[in-house]
Amino acid sequence: MDGGELSFLQWLVRTAPEHPGALRVPPGDDGAVWRLDSGEELVLATDALAEGVHFTRDVPPALVGRKALAVNLSDLAAMGAKPLCGLATCALPKGFPDSLPREVTNGLREAGRRYGCPLAGGDTLSHEGGLLVSVSVIGAPVKGGPVTRAGGRPGDVLAVTGALGGAVASGRHLGFEPRLAEAERILASGAARAMIDVSDGLLLDLNRLADACGAGFLIEGDRIPVHPGTAGGLQGALREGEDFELLFAAPPEAWRKLEAGWDLETPVTAIGTLTPPSSGRVLILDGRRTPAAPEGYEHR
Amino acid sequence: MDGGELSFLQWLVRTAPEHPGALRVPPGDDGAVWRLDSGEELVLATDALAEGVHFTRDVPPALVGRKALAVNLSDLAAMGAKPLCGLATCALPKGFPDSLPREVTNGLREAGRRYGCPLAGGDTLSHEGGLLVSVSVIGAPVKGGPVTRAGGRPGDVLAVTGALGGAVASGRHLGFEPRLAEAERILASGAARAMIDVSDGLLLDLNRLADACGAGFLIEGDRIPVHPGTAGGLQGALREGEDFELLFAAPPEAWRKLEAGWDLETPVTAIGTLTPPSSGRVLILDGRRTPAAPEGYEHR
Repeated sequence: MDGGELSFLQWLVRTAPEHPGALRVPPGDDGAVWRLDSGEELVLATDALAEGVHFTRDVPPALVGRKALAVNLSDLAAMGAKPLCGLATCALPKGFPDSLPREVTNGLREAGRRYGCPLAGGDTLSHEGGLLVSVSVIGAPVKGGPVTRAGGRPGDVLAVTGALGGAVASGRHLGFEPRLAEAERILASGAARAMIDVSDGLLLDLNRLADACGAGFLIEGDRIPVHPGTAGGLQGALREGEDFELLFAAPPEAWRKLEAGWDLETPVTAIGTLTPPSSGRVLILDGRRTPAAPEGYEHR
Repeated sequence: MDGGELSFLQWLVRTAPEHPGALRVPPGDDGAVWRLDSGEELVLATDALAEGVHFTRDVPPALVGRKALAVNLSDLAAMGAKPLCGLATCALPKGFPDSLPREVTNGLREAGRRYGCPLAGGDTLSHEGGLLVSVSVIGAPVKGGPVTRAGGRPGDVLAVTGALGGAVASGRHLGFEPRLAEAERILASGAARAMIDVSDGLLLDLNRLADACGAGFLIEGDRIPVHPGTAGGLQGALREGEDFELLFAAPPEAWRKLEAGWDLETPVTAIGTLTPPSSGRVLILDGRRTPAAPEGYEHR
């Protein structure tokens, strides 16, 4: 997150109080929640991928299109929402090969079909720059949703879907499955008082969740599911990011029921608990308590 | 419109039949209309501005932000919708000055306040390329809306808001007022069976409207409102574009009532009529009938 993004988000948050009725969850979470006059709620998210920032030129354009939609669907999942439709902007490098827009759009289309998120509109241009795909998605809360990063309480179980680490090295970050079905199940079980998707590394996103909840946490290193083949092992799982798994805070009773009845292919794993803020942020590694804020991380 | 945009739109239109219930107006119009399960309708549009394509580096960044939102609001107006909220992506050139994101977002914020379209979310990144601002907007139909480019019938009056020509040379294209209030009035009067915003020049957008209506048209050159100071005179008004005025097809009786009761500052002017398709597309210039398709334009 650079200065530009910070100031942009700060601006967005500042504008939110002007619309306290309609904008139920202001920007800064994984998505915003907008309440229509009818009372119906929409969940909104937007995310862009740019060449040289999020991917290199050798990545197949269809995978760029796929991921541009999928990162937004991961945001919807983290908000406890399912997709309705999306809008996409493709900025193409000047002199692009004819096949480029077709491949990007094929990636968008196939992901849209797979996850039930048709594109309702788009804009294309060619510019002095690399490929850039910006997607906005509109979603509807699932039963029990929406959910934000806030709302978790001390004593809640912290759990993650799937396994973490090695996502970029393995290429998994391009073809990951947004956890829409898992989110729907978790929300229906009342097992997420707070939720976030793990995009910037478990430690960083844990700290964000704890900030939003006004809580501390204690996690146990040997319970963290490390993806097979993660070169960095547990340290990779803690820090590498691009996992796009869900991290959520569940009331203990709801967690027990969720775990007992879980029959989806993607596992869910308890890795620790939320604690009172005074207990700090602790990772247990080889039986020893270590601080669990990434270097340079400051509480908001 | 380059090959990339064409193929992107063709793809989008192809995907539309998969969602005949929800996607009431598929991509290809000024916006899409999405019907929620409750029956409530959303109008969606997306548009991006890129340095070197839509503006030069000497344009103040606040005006880029303003216009990035305004072009989308013009699309909503043309669909007979009012804004609910927007989502924005800002791609900043690497090494951007600190002031750049602030200025762009100030432009977005001020336009959002002026037109009642708060930004509900955003994404910012810096990349190897120029400033690029992509905005998506979500709107709700006004009374009598939504309206598309189709639906006009032979005999309908063709009318425009405001005056045309010289928008780029005068800088008006950066600070234009999206015709939201005018659209609301026009729709409430039942005076738009079809509507489009004039972004690519009156002749081109007239042909698009006629294509969508399956109609011909006859317009009278001496009735076209030419913006004062348009260097190209009537030819400029016909071709230059970036006017962001509304062009609509009104049933004759509704037009008479609209014109008689019109008290908004922006004028509305009848410039001709829709005709049967067999009558062709005709512009009367100095008393002579001339063909009114721009060079190279092909009916779809």
